[in-house]
Amino acid sequence: MTDALQTKWSTFQEQHKNKARLLIHCPDQPGIVSAVSEFLYQQGANIIESNQYTTDPAGGEFFMRVVFEAEQLPAIQKELEQKFQAIAHSFQMDWRFSYVYQIKRMAIFVSKELHCLRELLWEWQSGDLIADIPLVISNHEDARGIVESLGIPFYHIPANKDIRKQVEAKQLELLKEFDIDVIVLARYMQILTPDFVAANKNKIINIHHSFLPAFVGANPYERAYQRGVKLIGATSHFVTDELDEGPIIEQDISRVDHRDNSEAMKKIGQSIERSVLARAVKWQLEDRIIVHQNKTIVF
Amino acid sequence: MTDALQTKWSTFQEQHKNKARLLIHCPDQPGIVSAVSEFLYQQGANIIESNQYTTDPAGGEFFMRVVFEAEQLPAIQKELEQKFQAIAHSFQMDWRFSYVYQIKRMAIFVSKELHCLRELLWEWQSGDLIADIPLVISNHEDARGIVESLGIPFYHIPANKDIRKQVEAKQLELLKEFDIDVIVLARYMQILTPDFVAANKNKIINIHHSFLPAFVGANPYERAYQRGVKLIGATSHFVTDELDEGPIIEQDISRVDHRDNSEAMKKIGQSIERSVLARAVKWQLEDRIIVHQNKTIVF
Amino acid sequence: MTDALQTKWSTFQEQHKNKARLLIHCPDQPGIVSAVSEFLYQQGANIIESNQYTTDPAGGEFFMRVVFEAEQLPAIQKELEQKFQAIAHSFQMDWRFSYVYQIKRMAIFVSKELHCLRELLWEWQSGDLIADIPLVISNHEDARGIVESLGIPFYHIPANKDIRKQVEAKQLELLKEFDIDVIVLARYMQILTPDFVAANKNKIINIHHSFLPAFVGANPYERAYQRGVKLIGATSHFVTDELDEGPIIEQDISRVDHRDNSEAMKKIGQSIERSVLARAVKWQLEDRIIVHQNKTIVF
Amino acid sequence: MTDALQTKWSTFQEQHKNKARLLIHCPDQPGIVSAVSEFLYQQGANIIESNQYTTDPAGGEFFMRVVFEAEQLPAIQKELEQKFQAIAHSFQMDWRFSYVYQIKRMAIFVSKELHCLRELLWEWQSGDLIADIPLVISNHEDARGIVESLGIPFYHIPANKDIRKQVEAKQLELLKEFDIDVIVLARYMQILTPDFVAANKNKIINIHHSFLPAFVGANPYERAYQRGVKLIGATSHFVTDELDEGPIIEQDISRVDHRDNSEAMKKIGQSIERSVLARAVKWQLEDRIIVHQNKTIVF
Repeated sequence: MTDALQTKWSTFQEQHKNKARLLIHCPDQPGIVSAVSEFLYQQGANIIESNQYTTDPAGGEFFMRVVFEAEQLPAIQKELEQKFQAIAHSFQMDWRFSYVYQIKRMAIFVSKELHCLRELLWEWQSGDLIADIPLVISNHEDARGIVESLGIPFYHIPANKDIRKQVEAKQLELLKEFDIDVIVLARYMQILTPDFVAANKNKIINIHHSFLPAFVGANPYERAYQRGVKLIGATSHFVTDELDEGPIIEQDISRVDHRDNSEAMKKIGQSIERSVLARAVKWQLEDRIIVHQNKTIVF
Repeated sequence: MTDALQTKWSTFQEQHKNKARLLIHCPDQPGIVSAVSEFLYQQGANIIESNQYTTDPAGGEFFMRVVFEAEQLPAIQKELEQKFQAIAHSFQMDWRFSYVYQIKRMAIFVSKELHCLRELLWEWQSGDLIADIPLVISNHEDARGIVESLGIPFYHIPANKDIRKQVEAKQLELLKEFDIDVIVLARYMQILTPDFVAANKNKIINIHHSFLPAFVGANPYERAYQRGVKLIGATSHFVTDELDEGPIIEQDISRVDHRDNSEAMKKIGQSIERSVLARAVKWQLEDRIIVHQNKTIVF
Repeated sequence: MTDALQTKWSTFQEQHKNKARLLIHCPDQPGIVSAVSEFLYQQGANIIESNQYTTDPAGGEFFMRVVFEAEQLPAIQKELEQKFQAIAHSFQMDWRFSYVYQIKRMAIFVSKELHCLRELLWEWQSGDLIADIPLVISNHEDARGIVESLGIPFYHIPANKDIRKQVEAKQLELLKEFDIDVIVLARYMQILTPDFVAANKNKIINIHHSFLPAFVGANPYERAYQRGVKLIGATSHFVTDELDEGPIIEQDISRVDHRDNSEAMKKIGQSIERSVLARAVKWQLEDRIIVHQNKTIVF
Repeated sequence: MTDALQTKWSTFQEQHKNKARLLIHCPDQPGIVSAVSEFLYQQGANIIESNQYTTDPAGGEFFMRVVFEAEQLPAIQKELEQKFQAIAHSFQMDWRFSYVYQIKRMAIFVSKELHCLRELLWEWQSGDLIADIPLVISNHEDARGIVESLGIPFYHIPANKDIRKQVEAKQLELLKEFDIDVIVLARYMQILTPDFVAANKNKIINIHHSFLPAFVGANPYERAYQRGVKLIGATSHFVTDELDEGPIIEQDISRVDHRDNSEAMKKIGQSIERSVLARAVKWQLEDRIIVHQNKTIVF
């Protein structure tokens, strides 16, 4: 990591040291917003931003994201969490406090196509994607140059379906060693085992090069061309055991026409893949996403 | 109004009789969300949806829209408003309760081009635009057929700049007589006097056929063509004394190219005008818009 | 048909009486453009617009659309077609002249949801969709009012899968009687038999309420909601024997989020369905579409 | 330039050595398409792609772009051009042959904001932007690292309005020395003198960070924020003497809302600037753009 970026990060942490986010999911009932906001007010916190969503006003699920500031937050955050447990318990909440100054740690997995990796590294380098990137893992050597030129350690772990277990064992070790919060598959092109997925539930973000559920699986641009579609797209989603069936975070499309063969579609599509993945990753880093069943709520 | 529509409205009112919206604007300070949600909880109300926005966490303006349900709301709404005054006062709030069963009353002004009028009447007829439309006013006869065929009274008030005062006097009388909440200029093409605007502050929604602030004033499609733009657009905004300078509610664009002359741009543009105006009107009917200075917050 | 519209059509025919379109499809080889344009020049025709597309410069398929004007075209069109046969033969062309003053005849099939029908009738009434509409056919009565109010004959032919053959026999008779060129399924919701489709090859345009190939078949909005997509769409395509698998003419999408349930998606989607179908129908009426295998070239 | 890229270029040149583009602009009259296509056929050329446009069938301007292949094109191109002069003369054509194997030479001017430069270099490095980039010129040092790391010479020429003449003299010398075809102002932020513009007519492509003609001049994002627009955009255009008034090549927009301050708009906008500029530059490199008066025809 360059010195300039290090300085930027330190400044960011200093600026936001009193800011936190609270994510909540529980059965809906009257009084939740009141209890949460009253609690924060009692702790001296000021709510900066608040969003909520109820699946059904008549007995559905309740979701909430609150951003707040409190004086001396790092000093009181343990206490805050402890005190919150009473409320959380009474409303049967799944909940999580996230502190903005605790910059998330992100690993990027990549294969031979580098456009998504480049976009992420670029945004990161510009200071627009707030994360530490302690490592990039690839089953090929293609990305080494760009990754190492930015001072990021690059791990080449060749992979194929026969050695999947060994490969994933090495990867899991690295993820643990570097204490990784978010795993981004930036066109990694290898299928992960259920064990790997289970060990990183709702932590693995993939980019698929079609507007799912169209063209699940391999060669979506070729199949889009064969079908004669007038739109191509990309989808960012959390990885689950079902291929390309995980909770969708973001999608976008671009227009194509009869002149675009599958190669042209691929080039047009790469631009969509880049922006869709970058948006999804940012939202995850900003704690904007709650996964519920097989869907996402993006606040 | 047809019987089918009348039945639809009654059903709607019955279904939503306990639902209300609360809009708030005040200087930001800690404790607002807490106070409001605690208040609603004490009154037995359940918050269904809540959005807030602060211009600047360090001493800015605070905006909030809350949708809630309460048992027997029509019976207690007076009391609710009275009790809320204490909170409102202590936080220096601009505030407004709006009851969903009290269907808003909307007047449409139109001139010779009927596409925006048609879109609104169509959405209204389909039950997707929840409003009473007691009258349509026009300076031409063109719209009479379509308006009267739907059972809506049509008022033909010829207008030109020399008789503006008399024309507006008649219009204001009608607006008062029919107790109008929202005035939609669906391509009305007449400039309103400051008196008329002042009498209907933040109640008049206009559609302008360009992406403002480009092409303020007359003939935007012709001017867009002359400039050789690759996008044309439409803007819906509240009317103020400055022509086409009022708070923007919604904008959208469509792509054009060198083959499109100003006539083709006009046709393409009409489709954007229709959808942009319809969205803006719906948001106003759903109390989603707060005007602050010369901007809108759309929740 | 109103007198105003009748006058508009007559004016249109008079204005465009010397204008024609020529559609060509043949194996690619050098000299096609030269032969066609030389031919037209020799016949005194001026090319106004010309588009071509080759699937592969090295021995692919060649497609061309030429719009031209020629003095006294109605008088010489027979001769023109006869003379063109020599060129057509030498290049093995599929070809078709289409004369702009010969306004196409369009039948609309509709069921209970009327938004697509309305959009088409509206564009037609505004003079933006150049077609005769001698009849609307429906398996329900819902559309009768709007159709007959515009002076268009309405045929109520109840339908279900048990009487499909009899129903289609009646429909085919009507299509023949009224000499129909284009059949639009404006949310008709009935499956057509292979016989009906074969009798109207590349003449039936359907609107499907998803971005195909996602959500083929029934209830696409409900399934889109279940899948948690962030985009919904609509697709206009020619009908073939495979359900929702015919050549795609046009597609578009709109953004949705977690707050949109399937009912909300349906409302948002209707707006896309309307515009996508209207564009596809206009392109067909303007002879812009060539079907090749299971794809469309749209010039 | 890396060896990999050099190899890519050589392969590209070899693949496309027989391919050329012909751009034509002349007064419309019958027989142009026929004469041009007959000529190319006689020379043994096969038309791969052809587009034309007439401002007005009744005596307007005619524009055409033809892509063709001919055996041994480099050997016969001189002769081809000479023979074409007779046709060109008889139709009063402005015309230009462009040979695909003659890769265009592009200079990039940049200031302190590097996102547009990065996008161009990235596309270039991926082989998607076919150009030689013999130099990058900047009035600041910020871009030196990224430029030199790709093996491109970087010229730091400090600039301000007092020394404009001397600065431009140096720049013009470099442009001449490196035989530059296309000058891209990738957020250069300096105003060019009429002399510089005149010396490079229709060769300088700028990116302006608004949807022109809205927000001509400085600080468009700040002004967009002040105006409360719901869309922000970017415009790529040829540079003329009138600031931000040159022929528009491409525009695009992105949606913003009340939560986006001018800083957020700037970040959102950078993504649009990148793609809009990249598209415009590619179209210029592919000879797709004809400038007519103050507009572009983009084929």
